[in-house]
Amino acid sequence: MKQKAIVLYSGGRDSSLVAHLLDHFGYEVKLVTSNSGIVQGAPKDAQKAAKIIGFPHEVVKIPKQIIERAAEIAQEDGFPLHAVNYAHKQVLEVVTQKFSKKYTTIADGTRRDDRTPRLTYPEMQSFEARHNVAYFAPLLGFGHKTINHLSKRIFTYKEIWAGTKPTAEYETEIRAVLRKKKKGLDKKIFPKKHFHSVITGWAASGNL
Amino acid sequence: MKQKAIVLYSGGRDSSLVAHLLDHFGYEVKLVTSNSGIVQGAPKDAQKAAKIIGFPHEVVKIPKQIIERAAEIAQEDGFPLHAVNYAHKQVLEVVTQKFSKKYTTIADGTRRDDRTPRLTYPEMQSFEARHNVAYFAPLLGFGHKTINHLSKRIFTYKEIWAGTKPTAEYETEIRAVLRKKKKGLDKKIFPKKHFHSVITGWAASGNL
Repeated sequence: MKQKAIVLYSGGRDSSLVAHLLDHFGYEVKLVTSNSGIVQGAPKDAQKAAKIIGFPHEVVKIPKQIIERAAEIAQEDGFPLHAVNYAHKQVLEVVTQKFSKKYTTIADGTRRDDRTPRLTYPEMQSFEARHNVAYFAPLLGFGHKTINHLSKRIFTYKEIWAGTKPTAEYETEIRAVLRKKKKGLDKKIFPKKHFHSVITGWAASGNL
Repeated sequence: MKQKAIVLYSGGRDSSLVAHLLDHFGYEVKLVTSNSGIVQGAPKDAQKAAKIIGFPHEVVKIPKQIIERAAEIAQEDGFPLHAVNYAHKQVLEVVTQKFSKKYTTIADGTRRDDRTPRLTYPEMQSFEARHNVAYFAPLLGFGHKTINHLSKRIFTYKEIWAGTKPTAEYETEIRAVLRKKKKGLDKKIFPKKHFHSVITGWAASGNL
């Protein structure tokens, strides 16, 4: 029996690797990108990437309040870790409620060397029990060396300076709310130099 | 370039799944089972399972002191968690020192829902830096629902009551030391009813 899995999808290396793995594991994969409407174009790169890697893709509207509350948390903290984590957990709930009747597995691109976003182990257990699904973070045991090796083997991708162009990461919409509060506030809160990756094609080796 | 990986191997579902995954990821896989000589026959089922799943396999002799110290820890604690964890970390060190010149990746079957054995995140970082390898625990993000689904899809296996028959788990040799200290001591320390799985073949669906 083919299990059906939702993959929370940004169009980047990590969530694309997750989709590819689950497909290899025999799951029927559907990609989902969340968007609150605060930055309507944010999912565009994710939509393109989904087409490239070849899975059905849906943009799911989430309440603006999730992003607004996340922006408040970021402002209170002065750094984005808890804000992004909060947004991710809320989005997991919204998406899972929408799909848990048809889909048995909810997967995301959380990695071992990420500090954020991350469910704790008790949160994973509670999430699975409440929704009667399997939560699956296949990259949780993959360190950055392994992720680099595998994504280069499988995909080509470009790197986008965070904050310079909308991407499907939570960061894009949280930044927009912060900028509305005060010009330049997002730049004070999010780290200056980091990239978001966007899949642009298959590597020459082409596949796993 | 094909990366070479060592998989710490017990012959059970988890480490067999790890070997199978790494093979799919394009790694050249070698299975390694540790044995201190206290229970010399312990790796036998692992050797058979390795043949079934089709990877080169080596039994690596580890110092008896590792198992003896683990047994002391178990006796002090009255439960096996830290003892097994201690043994696993020591074995990781011994095996990695032996193979880190030729192998870039050291993998094990640690799962999300295991309480033991488990490296902490700082321990993983330290391990990778000291040995210049990637530590890869691909099942760390796999919950028990996902592991059940995938192992049944891929393998057939039998379940062996822990303590009734030697298996390649650390438990077998630690129990032997405890029994030598005092008759029945191992039964007081290890939980009564649990199984170790041993791979017996491929499932009908045969593969990922």
